[in-house]
This record gives sequence, structure tokens and C-alpha cells, in this order.
Amino acid sequence: MVIDVLLKPKEIRETELKSRVAVVLDVLRATSSIVTALANGCRAVIPAKTISEARKIERCLKNGTYHRKNDFFHDENIPDIFGKDILLGGERGGERVPGFSHGNSPLEYGKEAVADKVLVLTTTNGTKAIRLAAKEAPALFIGSLLNARAAARKIWLLQKDTAVICAGTDGNFSLEDSLAAGVLIKEILQLAQGKLPQGKRDEHPRYTLPEIKDGPGRVHLSDLAAAVYRLALWYGDNLLQAFYDSRHGQKLLQLGFEADLHHCARINLYDLAPVYRQGIIYLP
Amino acid sequence: MVIDVLLKPKEIRETELKSRVAVVLDVLRATSSIVTALANGCRAVIPAKTISEARKIERCLKNGTYHRKNDFFHDENIPDIFGKDILLGGERGGERVPGFSHGNSPLEYGKEAVADKVLVLTTTNGTKAIRLAAKEAPALFIGSLLNARAAARKIWLLQKDTAVICAGTDGNFSLEDSLAAGVLIKEILQLAQGKLPQGKRDEHPRYTLPEIKDGPGRVHLSDLAAAVYRLALWYGDNLLQAFYDSRHGQKLLQLGFEADLHHCARINLYDLAPVYRQGIIYLP
Repeated sequence: MVIDVLLKPKEIRETELKSRVAVVLDVLRATSSIVTALANGCRAVIPAKTISEARKIERCLKNGTYHRKNDFFHDENIPDIFGKDILLGGERGGERVPGFSHGNSPLEYGKEAVADKVLVLTTTNGTKAIRLAAKEAPALFIGSLLNARAAARKIWLLQKDTAVICAGTDGNFSLEDSLAAGVLIKEILQLAQGKLPQGKRDEHPRYTLPEIKDGPGRVHLSDLAAAVYRLALWYGDNLLQAFYDSRHGQKLLQLGFEADLHHCARINLYDLAPVYRQGIIYLP
Repeated sequence: MVIDVLLKPKEIRETELKSRVAVVLDVLRATSSIVTALANGCRAVIPAKTISEARKIERCLKNGTYHRKNDFFHDENIPDIFGKDILLGGERGGERVPGFSHGNSPLEYGKEAVADKVLVLTTTNGTKAIRLAAKEAPALFIGSLLNARAAARKIWLLQKDTAVICAGTDGNFSLEDSLAAGVLIKEILQLAQGKLPQGKRDEHPRYTLPEIKDGPGRVHLSDLAAAVYRLALWYGDNLLQAFYDSRHGQKLLQLGFEADLHHCARINLYDLAPVYRQGIIYLP
């Protein structure tokens, strides 16, 4: 299996994804919020591209006219989302959309707030990237640092070529998402090797990193996948540092979301790999 | 000054470079070969986009009909390249172009081979990226690991916004060029701080990496610049490892160019910063 990384949503359109598994990452904060909400008992998250689309989805869910999107899969296990309480969440410029009950902070999505409810969410980068990727990729997972290992396990079990998609910030590269891509790849390599790769520097290298021969399968990393993997090794356990290093992390700090950064940096807090099918993100 | 990184030549067209200093990196092997040739007394290197253009430049130089390209600068210091012996160098698919006297190995460009001669060079990625960047950027330097510190000093002295351009491999991201971009940025930060940044991981980070406040100027890193800088910190002194990790490095190994990898990984071997002006790369 070949693992590649897409650094910006724009690359989704430019890349052949029809035969690949995709994972979308927007660790500050959309995919972290989605994972947190589902971990706390939210039935499903419906990602909307725009504020008006989010309002429309809420309306249609309430009056029973909501229709699922077509998808590659026909999946009878998609949770029933009708007749449930609906939360409207999202941000623009990092701050809660006026009139919405919730913003994009994962800390707003605790058990009391979300259990057995349906969340309609729209964010600047993350939900758009999810929708864009869903149009192209036959299987789409939601990843974050919070559920890196669980997402890695799904990918490893599928043994298909995989695209790790970074939502980025305002269409540009973001340090935090590429770091998360590296962490995800680190977890996949760990599964492939049956152990944590040391990543120890060898003074006389005579081997190639991208191919791992001693696992049940083989993992080939693209150069970009290898680069973000090395980046993850540099940050090691101190993933919070990457958030402080990043432009978007700094912006969130200025907006007063320091606690969000600390939450989003908690690696492997949740053992779940949400999937996107027919317009809905849920736990299969 | 803001430092950003371009990962692929395609981004040169998509990026505003008119007000920025640019450095082009193709460490395996074009810019390493150019720097090596100039260090060994080559008067000038003329980068050609195609094989036929390279042959035409050689012909025009020989019969005196060669014309310099227009450029932002009018520079009377450009070395006289007429009446000199001409070398025709270049590769396609990593191997010497049939009929050319030289390939793209820096080890072919020793003193005996190049002293006081003019080299016309065409390569798959590097010379094309240089020509593309030269159309957009007002000041263009040639960088590699071999001359990272000297190139960093030029950039630091100019105190302008800077684009570090990775030539990549066949239009795609390459690990070795992004690593070299990180090494270059590491050297610039060192100059800005008056010391080598520790890059030590802080368990309780409360600072932002991209802004450095204690130097004579301020260096702001984009997220991508910060990422490749962290990548360079991971590889540390073992830059050769990145070549072994990379697809293109592996290809060159298969082609028998292991000695080239060792040469190109020698950081700060040469104290010179070649500039591109009016179609010619030389030492100002």
C-alpha cells in the first residue's frame, strides 16, 4: 500500500482519489470536534459547506425532508438521524457563527451537550475539505490526534493505497495538520512493523525508509509522507509545541482557545474511527 | 522578513514573487552541480530548459550570436562568457544526455574539467525551475547543502521577503529539497539570532517559533517554512539519511551515483552564493 499526503484542499481536485482510501485531518479544530462529539455519544455529524447549507440541513431534518447524499457505498448501518435533537455548530474566523447554538470548540461537545443528538457542523476549512474529499474518495475516514491510532488501524486493515488529506488553513499549508498526518503515518508504520519504529538516526544509512519489509504487508511512503513522518518524529510526544509553532494555533490563542489546543493535542484519547457515508459522519 | 517555501515548480507560476528574493534548490543534483562547478573555477553556468535549447546556446556562444536575457537588473559585472571553452552538460532520467560531454554529476565538475570554462546545463527539474523562477523573482540565488550558509547570509543581508523554491522531482514534492530548504532556514535563523537555535523541545511551550525578536531583524516563518525547519532539525547533521529516505535518492543509488549523494550531503563545503542574472549563473 502506498501512502501519500495532500497538503491543501485544492489538491483534492487535482489528485486521483477514486481508488484510494482517504482520511481528512483538520486538527485545529473541526475533525477534533467531530471525533470528540461522536466519542461523547453524538449519533452523527453532518458536515455542511456553508452557513446557509447548515441552516437548510437543520430545517430539512426537522420537517423530515432531509435526503441522504448518494455515495459509493450503500450502507444500511447508517444511524437513523430523524426525530433527534439537532445542534447547529460552526465557526467563521475561529468564532461561533452568530445564531448557532455551538461553535467549533471540541470542549463544547461534552456528553451533556451531544448525547443521542445530531450535529450539523460548518467550519472554514475542515467541513469543506471533508465534503470535497467525499466526492472523490470511495472510503473516507475522519482523523485527528485524538483518534490517530484507531484511524491508522482502519487504514492498515484495508491495505489500500491511502491519501492523508490535510484541510490546511484558508487553503494553505498548515503545520498542525501536516504534523497530524505524520503522527497518523507513524501509527500505521507501527502497525506494519508490529512495533514502534525507532526513527533513530543512523550515521551510515544503507536502508530505505519508505518500504517496510518485515510486516504482514508493505507500506510505501511517498516523499511527502516520509517528510511529515520525520516531522512527527521531531515533535515526538510534544504535539502541543506544533500548535504553538503554527499560525492558526497562535490565532486560536489570541481568541482565547488555549484549552482547545491542549485538548486537540491529546494523542489517542479516543479509540474510534468515524466514517463519512452518504453525507453523514458516524461510528460504524 | 517573511520566509516561505514553494514545494513544486508549479507553484512558481501561482505565487507572487515580484517583490521577493528567491532561492532555487535542487540538491540531487542540479544546483549542487552548479555550485560545485563554480567553486572549481567555472566562469558561468547557463541553465537551459531543453536539450535542443542547450545545443542552440552552445552554438550561439561559439559563433558569437548569443544574447543575454533581459533581467530586472542591469549588471556590468556579469562575466564575459565569449571566447571561452564550452561544456555541454545535463541529464534525462538521471543519465547523461547522449552526445553531451558531461552529465549532471557534481563529481564531473572538478577543477581540471571546468576552470575558466562556461557550462551549458540542462536537467529534468533544476534548470527548468531556475528559468521559471527567474521570470518572476527580481533576485535569484542558487542554493544547495554545499553552500547553505553562504546563501543564507545573502538572504539575511538583503532583509527582504524570501521564497525558497524546491525544484522537486518530476513536478512533485521531493524530500531532499524540502530538507535543504529547512537547512537553509536554519542557517538564516542562526544569523538572525546570532547563534544556532537550539530547536530543543519545550515541555511547556509558551512561545511562537515563527517570530524571532532578539536579532537585528525579525524573521517570520510561514507554517511550511516552520515545518521544513523542524524537518531539518530532525535530520540534524545526518543529511545523507534524507537522501537515502527519498525516492530520487534511491533512484540515483540504483543508477550507481552513490558518491554523488555523499558529495551533495556535505553541508557548507563552499562559501559562495551564485546569482542568476540575464540568463547566466555566476559568482558576483
